Amino acid sequence: MKIAVVGLGIIGGSYCKALKAYTPHTVIGINRTESVAEKALAEGAIDIIGTPESLGDADIIILCMYPQACVDFINEYGKYIRSDAIVTDAAGIKTALCPQLRKLSEEYGFTFVGSHPMAGKEKNGFEASDENLFMGASFIITPCGADKMTVNTLASLALEIGFGTIKVTTPEEHDRMIAFTSQLPHVLACAYVLSPSCPNHKGFSAGSYRDVSRVANINSKLWSELFLENREPLLEELEILYKNMSSLYHAIKDEDREKLAALLEQGHSVKQALGE
Amino acid sequence: MKIAVVGLGIIGGSYCKALKAYTPHTVIGINRTESVAEKALAEGAIDIIGTPESLGDADIIILCMYPQACVDFINEYGKYIRSDAIVTDAAGIKTALCPQLRKLSEEYGFTFVGSHPMAGKEKNGFEASDENLFMGASFIITPCGADKMTVNTLASLALEIGFGTIKVTTPEEHDRMIAFTSQLPHVLACAYVLSPSCPNHKGFSAGSYRDVSRVANINSKLWSELFLENREPLLEELEILYKNMSSLYHAIKDEDREKLAALLEQGHSVKQALGE
Repeated sequence: MKIAVVGLGIIGGSYCKALKAYTPHTVIGINRTESVAEKALAEGAIDIIGTPESLGDADIIILCMYPQACVDFINEYGKYIRSDAIVTDAAGIKTALCPQLRKLSEEYGFTFVGSHPMAGKEKNGFEASDENLFMGASFIITPCGADKMTVNTLASLALEIGFGTIKVTTPEEHDRMIAFTSQLPHVLACAYVLSPSCPNHKGFSAGSYRDVSRVANINSKLWSELFLENREPLLEELEILYKNMSSLYHAIKDEDREKLAALLEQGHSVKQALGE
Repeated sequence: MKIAVVGLGIIGGSYCKALKAYTPHTVIGINRTESVAEKALAEGAIDIIGTPESLGDADIIILCMYPQACVDFINEYGKYIRSDAIVTDAAGIKTALCPQLRKLSEEYGFTFVGSHPMAGKEKNGFEASDENLFMGASFIITPCGADKMTVNTLASLALEIGFGTIKVTTPEEHDRMIAFTSQLPHVLACAYVLSPSCPNHKGFSAGSYRDVSRVANINSKLWSELFLENREPLLEELEILYKNMSSLYHAIKDEDREKLAALLEQGHSVKQALGE
Protein backbone atom coordinates (compact mmCIF):
# COMPACT_ATOMS: atom_id res chain seq x y z
CA MET A 1 0.00 0.00 0.00
CA LYS A 2 0.92 3.62 -0.31
CA ILE A 3 0.43 5.46 2.96
CA ALA A 4 0.49 9.25 3.19
CA VAL A 5 1.34 10.82 6.53
CA VAL A 6 0.37 14.48 6.77
CA GLY A 7 2.27 16.47 9.41
CA LEU A 8 5.70 15.19 10.36
CA GLY A 9 5.81 16.12 14.05
CA ILE A 10 6.50 13.60 16.81
CA ILE A 11 3.39 11.51 15.99
CA GLY A 12 3.54 11.77 12.20
CA GLY A 13 7.29 11.22 12.19
CA SER A 14 6.90 8.16 14.41
CA TYR A 15 4.21 6.74 12.08
CA CYS A 16 6.59 7.16 9.13
CA LYS A 17 9.55 5.58 10.92
CA ALA A 18 7.47 2.68 12.27
CA LEU A 19 5.88 2.04 8.85
CA LYS A 20 9.34 1.96 7.26
CA ALA A 21 10.79 -0.21 10.02
CA TYR A 22 8.02 -2.77 10.37
CA THR A 23 6.02 -2.87 7.09
CA PRO A 24 6.77 -3.06 3.36
CA HIS A 25 4.44 -0.12 2.58
CA THR A 26 5.53 2.98 0.67
CA VAL A 27 5.44 6.09 2.86
CA ILE A 28 4.58 9.50 1.41
CA GLY A 29 5.43 12.36 3.79
CA ILE A 30 3.57 15.65 3.50
CA ASN A 31 4.64 18.58 5.64
CA ARG A 32 4.08 22.35 5.51
CA THR A 33 7.73 23.13 6.30
CA GLU A 34 9.67 21.51 3.49
CA SER A 35 12.99 21.24 5.34
CA VAL A 36 11.41 18.77 7.78
CA ALA A 37 10.17 16.57 4.93
CA GLU A 38 13.64 16.70 3.39
CA LYS A 39 15.15 15.63 6.69
CA ALA A 40 12.66 12.74 6.93
CA LEU A 41 13.55 11.68 3.39
CA ALA A 42 17.29 11.88 4.07
CA GLU A 43 16.85 9.75 7.20
CA GLY A 44 14.84 7.14 5.31
CA ALA A 45 11.71 7.82 7.38
CA ILE A 46 9.71 8.39 4.18
CA ASP A 47 10.04 7.19 0.58
CA ILE A 48 8.62 10.24 -1.17
CA ILE A 49 7.99 13.88 -0.31
CA GLY A 50 4.37 14.43 -1.22
CA THR A 51 2.23 17.49 -1.87
CA PRO A 52 -1.51 17.84 -1.19
CA GLU A 53 -2.01 17.03 -4.89
CA SER A 54 -0.25 13.68 -4.46
CA LEU A 55 -2.89 12.55 -1.92
CA GLY A 56 -4.46 10.79 -4.91
CA ASP A 57 -1.65 8.22 -4.82
CA ALA A 58 -2.47 7.15 -1.25
CA ASP A 59 -4.46 4.12 -0.13
CA ILE A 60 -4.36 5.28 3.49
CA ILE A 61 -3.94 8.87 4.71
CA ILE A 62 -3.00 9.58 8.33
CA LEU A 63 -3.59 13.17 9.46
CA CYS A 64 -1.12 14.09 12.21
CA MET A 65 -1.87 17.77 12.69
CA TYR A 66 -3.62 19.82 15.37
CA PRO A 67 -7.34 18.94 15.44
CA GLN A 68 -8.73 21.99 13.67
CA ALA A 69 -5.88 21.93 11.13
CA CYS A 70 -7.02 18.44 10.05
CA VAL A 71 -10.45 19.81 9.14
CA ASP A 72 -8.96 22.81 7.32
CA PHE A 73 -6.58 20.55 5.39
CA ILE A 74 -9.33 18.18 4.19
CA ASN A 75 -11.63 21.09 3.42
CA GLU A 76 -8.99 22.42 1.06
CA TYR A 77 -7.45 19.25 -0.37
CA GLY A 78 -10.14 16.57 0.07
CA LYS A 79 -10.82 16.80 -3.66
CA TYR A 80 -7.51 15.03 -4.36
CA ILE A 81 -8.33 11.99 -2.22
CA ARG A 82 -9.42 8.80 -4.01
CA SER A 83 -12.87 7.41 -3.20
CA ASP A 84 -11.37 4.02 -2.21
CA ALA A 85 -8.90 5.65 0.21
CA ILE A 86 -9.11 5.41 3.99
CA VAL A 87 -8.47 8.60 5.95
CA THR A 88 -7.77 8.62 9.66
CA ASP A 89 -6.56 11.26 12.12
CA ALA A 90 -4.43 11.00 15.26
CA ALA A 91 -6.07 13.63 17.41
CA GLY A 92 -6.52 13.41 21.17
CA ILE A 93 -10.16 14.54 21.02
CA LYS A 94 -12.89 12.92 18.99
CA THR A 95 -16.41 14.27 19.61
CA ALA A 96 -15.62 17.74 18.32
CA LEU A 97 -13.56 16.50 15.38
CA CYS A 98 -14.88 13.21 13.98
CA PRO A 99 -18.31 14.43 12.80
CA GLN A 100 -16.63 17.19 10.78
CA LEU A 101 -14.22 14.77 9.11
CA ARG A 102 -17.04 12.26 8.60
CA LYS A 103 -19.07 14.95 6.83
CA LEU A 104 -16.15 15.85 4.59
CA SER A 105 -15.60 12.16 3.79
CA GLU A 106 -19.20 11.95 2.57
CA GLU A 107 -18.71 15.04 0.51
CA TYR A 108 -15.51 13.81 -1.16
CA GLY A 109 -16.38 10.11 -1.24
CA PHE A 110 -13.49 8.62 0.77
CA THR A 111 -13.87 6.58 4.00
CA PHE A 112 -13.10 8.25 7.31
CA VAL A 113 -12.34 6.38 10.53
CA GLY A 114 -11.15 8.19 13.67
CA SER A 115 -8.16 6.98 15.63
CA HIS A 116 -5.95 8.04 18.53
CA PRO A 117 -2.52 6.53 19.15
CA MET A 118 -2.07 6.60 22.95
CA ALA A 119 1.60 7.48 22.91
CA GLY A 120 3.70 10.58 23.21
CA LYS A 121 6.65 12.20 24.88
CA GLU A 122 7.20 15.46 26.67
CA LYS A 123 8.96 16.62 23.49
CA ASN A 124 7.68 17.77 20.11
CA GLY A 125 8.67 17.80 16.49
CA PHE A 126 10.16 15.36 14.03
CA GLU A 127 13.40 15.20 16.06
CA ALA A 128 11.47 13.56 18.92
CA SER A 129 9.86 10.94 16.65
CA ASP A 130 10.79 7.31 17.16
CA GLU A 131 10.04 4.08 15.29
CA ASN A 132 9.25 2.44 18.63
CA LEU A 133 7.01 5.16 20.07
CA PHE A 134 3.90 2.99 19.68
CA MET A 135 5.41 -0.22 21.00
CA GLY A 136 2.88 -1.88 23.31
CA ALA A 137 0.65 1.21 23.37
CA SER A 138 -3.10 1.35 22.95
CA PHE A 139 -4.61 2.30 19.58
CA ILE A 140 -8.12 3.68 19.95
CA ILE A 141 -10.44 3.53 16.95
CA THR A 142 -13.69 5.50 16.69
CA PRO A 143 -15.30 4.04 13.56
CA CYS A 144 -17.86 6.87 13.15
CA GLY A 145 -19.80 4.86 10.62
CA ALA A 146 -16.85 3.24 8.84
CA ASP A 147 -17.43 -0.42 7.87
CA LYS A 148 -15.82 -3.37 9.65
CA MET A 149 -13.34 -4.05 6.86
CA THR A 150 -11.95 -0.51 7.13
CA VAL A 151 -11.69 -0.79 10.90
CA ASN A 152 -9.88 -4.12 10.52
CA THR A 153 -7.46 -2.74 7.91
CA LEU A 154 -6.52 0.09 10.26
CA ALA A 155 -6.32 -2.20 13.31
CA SER A 156 -4.02 -4.63 11.47
CA LEU A 157 -1.75 -1.81 10.40
CA ALA A 158 -1.60 -0.54 14.00
CA LEU A 159 -0.62 -3.98 15.29
CA GLU A 160 2.03 -4.29 12.56
CA ILE A 161 3.76 -1.10 13.68
CA GLY A 162 3.89 -2.11 17.33
CA PHE A 163 0.66 -1.14 19.10
CA GLY A 164 -0.23 -3.64 21.81
CA THR A 165 -3.96 -3.02 22.29
CA ILE A 166 -6.79 -2.06 19.94
CA LYS A 167 -9.79 -0.35 21.55
CA VAL A 168 -12.86 0.34 19.42
CA THR A 169 -15.24 2.88 20.93
CA THR A 170 -17.44 5.93 20.34
CA PRO A 171 -16.09 9.49 20.17
CA GLU A 172 -18.04 10.33 23.34
CA GLU A 173 -16.66 7.43 25.40
CA HIS A 174 -13.18 8.20 24.07
CA ASP A 175 -13.41 11.81 25.19
CA ARG A 176 -14.82 10.98 28.62
CA MET A 177 -12.01 8.50 29.29
CA ILE A 178 -9.25 10.65 27.80
CA ALA A 179 -10.35 13.54 30.02
CA PHE A 180 -9.43 11.30 32.96
CA THR A 181 -6.44 9.32 31.67
CA SER A 182 -4.61 12.03 29.77
CA GLN A 183 -6.00 15.56 30.02
CA LEU A 184 -6.46 15.63 33.79
CA PRO A 185 -2.83 14.53 34.45
CA HIS A 186 -1.66 17.32 32.14
CA VAL A 187 -3.73 19.96 33.96
CA LEU A 188 -2.50 18.58 37.28
CA ALA A 189 1.16 18.56 36.25
CA CYS A 190 0.97 22.22 35.25
CA ALA A 191 -0.86 23.25 38.41
CA TYR A 192 1.67 21.24 40.46
CA VAL A 193 4.83 22.85 39.08
CA LEU A 194 3.40 26.34 39.65
CA SER A 195 4.05 25.94 43.40
CA PRO A 196 6.75 28.36 44.59
CA SER A 197 8.51 25.27 46.01
CA CYS A 198 9.09 23.76 42.59
CA PRO A 199 12.24 25.64 41.49
CA ASN A 200 14.00 24.44 44.66
CA HIS A 201 13.07 20.77 44.44
CA LYS A 202 16.49 19.40 43.53
CA GLY A 203 18.05 17.27 46.26
CA PHE A 204 14.61 16.86 47.85
CA SER A 205 12.91 14.88 45.13
CA ALA A 206 12.65 11.40 43.73
CA GLY A 207 10.23 9.36 41.64
CA SER A 208 6.96 10.96 42.80
CA TYR A 209 8.07 14.48 41.89
CA ARG A 210 9.46 13.28 38.57
CA ASP A 211 6.31 11.38 37.62
CA VAL A 212 3.64 13.91 38.57
CA SER A 213 5.55 16.85 37.03
CA ARG A 214 6.74 15.12 33.83
CA VAL A 215 4.00 16.19 31.45
CA ALA A 216 4.07 19.81 32.65
CA ASN A 217 6.68 20.22 29.92
CA ILE A 218 3.66 20.80 27.73
CA ASN A 219 2.98 22.11 24.22
CA SER A 220 0.70 24.90 25.45
CA LYS A 221 -0.83 25.67 22.05
CA LEU A 222 -1.81 22.07 21.27
CA TRP A 223 -3.11 21.29 24.75
CA SER A 224 -5.13 24.51 25.05
CA GLU A 225 -6.94 23.40 21.92
CA LEU A 226 -7.41 19.84 23.21
CA PHE A 227 -8.72 21.01 26.60
CA LEU A 228 -11.19 23.47 25.11
CA GLU A 229 -12.42 20.96 22.52
CA ASN A 230 -13.14 18.53 25.37
CA ARG A 231 -14.32 21.08 27.89
CA GLU A 232 -17.31 19.33 29.47
CA PRO A 233 -15.74 15.94 30.30
CA LEU A 234 -12.53 17.62 31.50
CA LEU A 235 -14.38 20.05 33.80
CA GLU A 236 -16.33 17.10 35.19
CA GLU A 237 -13.14 15.15 35.98
CA LEU A 238 -11.60 18.27 37.55
CA GLU A 239 -14.66 18.64 39.78
CA ILE A 240 -14.43 14.99 40.85
CA LEU A 241 -10.76 15.44 41.64
CA TYR A 242 -11.47 18.61 43.63
CA LYS A 243 -14.00 16.71 45.69
CA ASN A 244 -11.64 13.83 46.44
CA MET A 245 -8.71 16.14 47.22
CA SER A 246 -10.99 18.10 49.49
CA SER A 247 -11.93 14.98 51.47
CA LEU A 248 -8.24 14.21 51.97
CA TYR A 249 -7.48 17.87 52.80
CA HIS A 250 -10.13 17.96 55.51
CA ALA A 251 -9.13 14.61 57.00
CA ILE A 252 -5.58 15.99 57.35
CA LYS A 253 -6.77 19.37 58.64
CA ASP A 254 -9.08 17.76 61.20
CA GLU A 255 -6.34 15.28 62.17
CA ASP A 256 -8.87 12.54 61.53
CA ARG A 257 -6.40 9.67 61.27
CA GLU A 258 -9.07 7.04 60.77
CA LYS A 259 -10.80 8.84 57.91
CA LEU A 260 -7.45 9.70 56.31
CA ALA A 261 -6.24 6.11 56.42
CA ALA A 262 -9.60 4.93 55.04
CA LEU A 263 -9.36 7.33 52.07
CA LEU A 264 -5.77 6.28 51.32
CA GLU A 265 -6.81 2.65 51.65
CA GLN A 266 -9.54 3.27 49.06
CA GLY A 267 -6.90 4.57 46.63
CA HIS A 268 -4.72 1.58 47.37
CA SER A 269 -7.66 -0.78 46.75
CA VAL A 270 -8.44 0.74 43.34
CA LYS A 271 -4.84 0.15 42.22
CA GLN A 272 -4.80 -3.35 43.71
CA ALA A 273 -8.05 -4.30 41.98
CA LEU A 274 -6.54 -3.15 38.69
CA GLY A 275 -3.48 -5.28 39.39
CA GLU A 276 -1.22 -2.21 39.23
CA MET B 1 32.49 -0.95 61.14
CA LYS B 2 29.53 -2.80 62.56
CA ILE B 3 26.27 -1.35 61.33
CA ALA B 4 22.93 -2.28 62.90
CA VAL B 5 19.81 -1.85 60.79
CA VAL B 6 16.60 -1.87 62.82
CA GLY B 7 13.46 -2.76 60.86
CA LEU B 8 13.94 -4.92 57.78
CA GLY B 9 11.21 -3.52 55.50
CA ILE B 10 11.87 -2.20 52.04
CA ILE B 11 14.16 0.60 53.29
CA GLY B 12 15.94 -1.33 56.03
CA GLY B 13 16.30 -4.38 53.80
CA SER B 14 17.74 -2.23 51.01
CA TYR B 15 20.24 -0.67 53.43
CA CYS B 16 21.38 -4.16 54.46
CA LYS B 17 21.70 -5.44 50.91
CA ALA B 18 23.51 -2.30 49.70
CA LEU B 19 25.89 -2.38 52.67
CA LYS B 20 26.70 -6.02 51.94
CA ALA B 21 27.04 -5.41 48.19
CA TYR B 22 29.12 -2.23 48.26
CA THR B 23 30.97 -2.04 51.58
CA PRO B 24 33.08 -4.35 53.75
CA HIS B 25 31.09 -3.51 56.91
CA THR B 26 29.43 -6.09 59.13
CA VAL B 27 25.63 -5.80 59.05
CA ILE B 28 23.52 -6.63 62.11
CA GLY B 29 19.83 -6.99 61.30
CA ILE B 30 17.23 -6.39 63.99
CA ASN B 31 13.58 -7.07 63.26
CA ARG B 32 10.48 -7.60 65.38
CA THR B 33 9.28 -10.54 63.27
CA GLU B 34 12.09 -13.07 63.50
CA SER B 35 11.24 -14.96 60.29
CA VAL B 36 12.09 -11.86 58.26
CA ALA B 37 15.50 -11.55 59.93
CA GLU B 38 16.10 -15.25 59.24
CA LYS B 39 15.22 -14.73 55.59
CA ALA B 40 17.62 -11.77 55.43
CA LEU B 41 20.37 -13.89 56.97
CA ALA B 42 19.71 -16.80 54.61
CA GLU B 43 19.90 -14.44 51.61
CA GLY B 44 23.16 -12.94 52.83
CA ALA B 45 21.60 -9.49 53.32
CA ILE B 46 22.85 -9.44 56.92
CA ASP B 47 25.77 -11.06 58.74
CA ILE B 48 24.13 -11.44 62.15
CA ILE B 49 20.61 -11.44 63.55
CA GLY B 50 20.73 -8.93 66.38
CA THR B 51 18.55 -8.20 69.38
CA PRO B 52 18.02 -4.82 71.04
CA GLU B 53 20.68 -5.89 73.55
CA SER B 54 23.25 -6.30 70.77
CA LEU B 55 22.94 -2.61 69.84
CA GLY B 56 26.06 -2.21 71.99
CA ASP B 57 28.10 -3.89 69.23
CA ALA B 58 27.15 -1.28 66.62
CA ASP B 59 29.20 1.72 65.49
CA ILE B 60 26.29 3.01 63.40
CA ILE B 61 22.59 2.30 63.96
CA ILE B 62 20.04 2.98 61.22
CA LEU B 63 16.42 3.08 62.39
CA CYS B 64 14.10 2.03 59.56
CA MET B 65 10.76 1.94 61.32
CA TYR B 66 7.66 4.14 61.28
CA PRO B 67 8.48 7.55 62.80
CA GLN B 68 6.88 7.12 66.22
CA ALA B 69 8.19 3.54 66.47
CA CYS B 70 11.75 4.92 66.23
CA VAL B 71 11.18 7.04 69.33
CA ASP B 72 9.55 4.19 71.22
CA PHE B 73 12.41 1.85 70.30
CA ILE B 74 15.14 4.23 71.49
CA ASN B 75 13.16 5.08 74.59
CA GLU B 76 13.19 1.43 75.50
CA TYR B 77 16.58 0.26 74.25
CA GLY B 78 18.73 3.44 74.10
CA LYS B 79 20.50 2.21 77.22
CA TYR B 80 22.26 -0.47 75.17
CA ILE B 81 23.75 2.02 72.66
CA ARG B 82 27.45 2.93 73.04
CA SER B 83 28.31 6.59 73.63
CA ASP B 84 30.60 6.65 70.57
CA ALA B 85 27.87 5.26 68.30
CA ILE B 86 26.06 7.24 65.61
CA VAL B 87 22.29 6.77 65.37
CA THR B 88 20.29 7.89 62.36
CA ASP B 89 16.73 7.32 61.19
CA ALA B 90 15.22 7.03 57.70
CA ALA B 91 11.90 8.75 58.27
CA GLY B 92 10.15 10.94 55.73
CA ILE B 93 9.35 13.64 58.28
CA LYS B 94 11.88 15.44 60.42
CA THR B 95 10.51 18.38 62.45
CA ALA B 96 8.22 16.22 64.57
CA LEU B 97 10.78 13.43 64.99
CA CYS B 98 14.34 14.76 65.17
CA PRO B 99 14.05 16.80 68.39
CA GLN B 100 12.71 13.73 70.21
CA LEU B 101 15.57 11.54 69.00
CA ARG B 102 18.06 14.33 69.71
CA LYS B 103 16.77 14.56 73.27
CA LEU B 104 17.11 10.79 73.75
CA SER B 105 20.65 10.92 72.32
CA GLU B 106 21.59 13.47 75.00
CA GLU B 107 20.03 11.29 77.64
CA TYR B 108 21.85 8.14 76.56
CA GLY B 109 25.09 9.78 75.36
CA PHE B 110 25.18 8.64 71.70
CA THR B 111 25.21 10.98 68.67
CA PHE B 112 22.02 11.42 66.68
CA VAL B 113 21.87 12.74 63.12
CA GLY B 114 18.66 12.73 61.09
CA SER B 115 18.55 11.41 57.56
CA HIS B 116 16.07 10.59 54.83
CA PRO B 117 16.90 8.36 51.86
CA MET B 118 14.83 9.71 48.95
CA ALA B 119 13.99 6.37 47.45
CA GLY B 120 11.15 3.91 47.55
CA LYS B 121 8.80 1.78 45.56
CA GLU B 122 5.06 1.29 45.49
CA LYS B 123 5.70 -1.95 47.38
CA ASN B 124 6.56 -2.74 50.97
CA GLY B 125 8.41 -5.26 53.05
CA PHE B 126 11.72 -7.04 52.89
CA GLU B 127 10.68 -8.81 49.65
CA ALA B 128 10.65 -5.45 47.88
CA SER B 129 14.11 -4.45 49.15
CA ASP B 130 16.88 -4.05 46.60
CA GLU B 131 20.64 -3.44 46.85
CA ASN B 132 20.29 -0.80 44.11
CA LEU B 133 17.29 1.05 45.54
CA PHE B 134 19.42 4.07 46.46
CA MET B 135 21.41 4.23 43.24
CA GLY B 136 21.70 7.87 42.16
CA ALA B 137 19.09 9.00 44.73
CA SER B 138 19.32 11.95 47.07
CA PHE B 139 20.35 11.42 50.70
CA ILE B 140 19.07 14.21 52.94
CA ILE B 141 20.87 14.84 56.24
CA THR B 142 19.42 16.96 59.04
CA PRO B 143 22.37 17.26 61.46
CA CYS B 144 20.25 18.53 64.40
CA GLY B 145 23.38 19.51 66.30
CA ALA B 146 25.60 16.60 65.25
CA ASP B 147 29.22 17.60 64.56
CA LYS B 148 30.74 17.80 61.09
CA MET B 149 32.70 14.59 61.44
CA THR B 150 29.52 12.62 62.16
CA VAL B 151 27.75 14.21 59.20
CA ASN B 152 30.73 13.36 56.98
CA THR B 153 30.85 9.75 58.19
CA LEU B 154 27.18 9.31 57.32
CA ALA B 155 27.51 11.13 53.99
CA SER B 156 30.48 8.96 52.97
CA LEU B 157 28.59 5.81 53.83
CA ALA B 158 25.61 7.03 51.78
CA LEU B 159 27.80 7.68 48.75
CA GLU B 160 29.43 4.24 49.15
CA ILE B 161 26.07 2.48 48.90
CA GLY B 162 25.01 4.32 45.79
CA PHE B 163 23.35 7.63 46.68
CA GLY B 164 24.09 10.28 44.06
CA THR B 165 23.41 13.49 45.98
CA ILE B 166 23.90 14.59 49.59
CA LYS B 167 21.70 17.42 50.80
CA VAL B 168 22.32 18.86 54.28
CA THR B 169 19.44 20.93 55.62
CA THR B 170 17.24 21.72 58.63
CA PRO B 171 14.25 19.59 59.66
CA GLU B 172 11.93 22.50 58.83
CA GLU B 173 13.27 23.03 55.30
CA HIS B 174 13.21 19.27 54.75
CA ASP B 175 9.56 19.05 55.76
CA ARG B 176 8.48 22.04 53.66
CA MET B 177 10.15 20.62 50.56
CA ILE B 178 9.03 17.03 51.15
CA ALA B 179 5.44 18.24 51.48
CA PHE B 180 5.76 19.38 47.87
CA THR B 181 8.04 16.77 46.29
CA SER B 182 6.69 13.63 47.92
CA GLN B 183 3.60 14.02 50.11
CA LEU B 184 1.55 16.13 47.70
CA PRO B 185 2.02 13.63 44.81
CA HIS B 186 0.84 10.85 47.12
CA VAL B 187 -2.30 12.78 48.14
CA LEU B 188 -2.91 13.61 44.48
CA ALA B 189 -2.45 10.04 43.29
CA CYS B 190 -5.04 8.78 45.79
CA ALA B 191 -7.51 11.54 44.96
CA TYR B 192 -6.98 10.86 41.25
CA VAL B 193 -7.70 7.13 41.30
CA LEU B 194 -10.93 7.70 43.28
CA SER B 195 -12.57 9.00 40.08
CA PRO B 196 -15.33 6.62 38.92
CA SER B 197 -13.53 6.58 35.54
CA CYS B 198 -10.44 4.89 36.97
CA PRO B 199 -11.55 1.23 36.98
CA ASN B 200 -12.27 1.53 33.22
CA HIS B 201 -9.01 3.17 32.18
CA LYS B 202 -7.47 0.19 30.39
CA GLY B 203 -7.15 0.69 26.64
CA PHE B 204 -7.53 4.44 27.12
CA SER B 205 -4.37 5.14 29.07
CA ALA B 206 -0.67 5.60 28.58
CA GLY B 207 2.24 7.23 30.41
CA SER B 208 0.37 10.11 32.04
CA TYR B 209 -2.16 7.85 33.74
CA ARG B 210 0.57 5.44 34.82
CA ASP B 211 2.77 8.17 36.27
CA VAL B 212 0.20 10.20 38.18
CA SER B 213 -1.54 7.12 39.61
CA ARG B 214 1.58 5.09 40.45
CA VAL B 215 2.00 6.04 44.10
CA ALA B 216 -1.71 5.58 44.88
CA ASN B 217 -0.67 2.01 45.63
CA ILE B 218 0.07 3.41 49.08
CA ASN B 219 0.83 2.02 52.52
CA SER B 220 -2.11 3.81 54.14
CA LYS B 221 -0.94 3.33 57.73
CA LEU B 222 2.56 4.73 57.14
CA TRP B 223 1.43 7.65 54.98
CA SER B 224 -1.39 8.67 57.32
CA GLU B 225 1.25 9.04 60.01
CA LEU B 226 3.61 10.96 57.69
CA PHE B 227 0.86 13.33 56.51
CA LEU B 228 -0.38 14.09 60.02
CA GLU B 229 3.16 14.60 61.35
CA ASN B 230 3.74 17.16 58.58
CA ARG B 231 0.28 18.66 58.59
CA GLU B 232 1.01 22.39 58.22
CA PRO B 233 3.41 22.30 55.24
CA LEU B 234 1.25 19.72 53.47
CA LEU B 235 -1.97 21.71 53.93
CA GLU B 236 -0.15 24.76 52.61
CA GLU B 237 0.98 22.94 49.45
CA LEU B 238 -2.52 21.55 48.97
CA GLU B 239 -3.92 25.08 49.17
CA ILE B 240 -1.40 26.32 46.59
CA LEU B 241 -2.31 23.44 44.29
CA TYR B 242 -6.04 24.15 44.71
CA LYS B 243 -5.45 27.75 43.71
CA ASN B 244 -3.46 26.83 40.60
CA MET B 245 -5.91 24.11 39.57
CA SER B 246 -8.71 26.58 40.07
CA SER B 247 -7.08 29.10 37.69
CA LEU B 248 -6.80 26.40 35.04
CA TYR B 249 -10.36 25.20 35.74
CA HIS B 250 -11.80 28.66 35.24
CA ALA B 251 -9.77 29.38 32.10
CA ILE B 252 -11.24 26.17 30.62
CA LYS B 253 -14.75 26.89 31.90
CA ASP B 254 -14.66 30.46 30.55
CA GLU B 255 -13.16 29.21 27.27
CA ASP B 256 -10.42 31.78 27.79
CA ARG B 257 -7.92 30.29 25.33
CA GLU B 258 -5.34 33.01 25.89
CA LYS B 259 -5.31 32.69 29.67
CA LEU B 260 -5.30 28.90 29.46
CA ALA B 261 -2.34 28.85 27.07
CA ALA B 262 -0.51 31.37 29.28
CA LEU B 263 -0.98 29.18 32.38
CA LEU B 264 0.19 26.06 30.54
CA GLU B 265 3.13 28.01 29.16
CA GLN B 266 4.06 28.98 32.74
CA GLY B 267 4.16 25.29 33.67
CA HIS B 268 6.25 24.55 30.61
CA SER B 269 8.67 27.37 31.53
CA VAL B 270 9.21 26.07 35.07
CA LYS B 271 10.20 22.66 33.70
CA GLN B 272 12.37 24.20 30.99
CA ALA B 273 14.18 26.42 33.51
CA LEU B 274 14.91 23.32 35.60
CA GLY B 275 16.26 21.58 32.49
CA GLU B 276 13.65 18.81 32.84
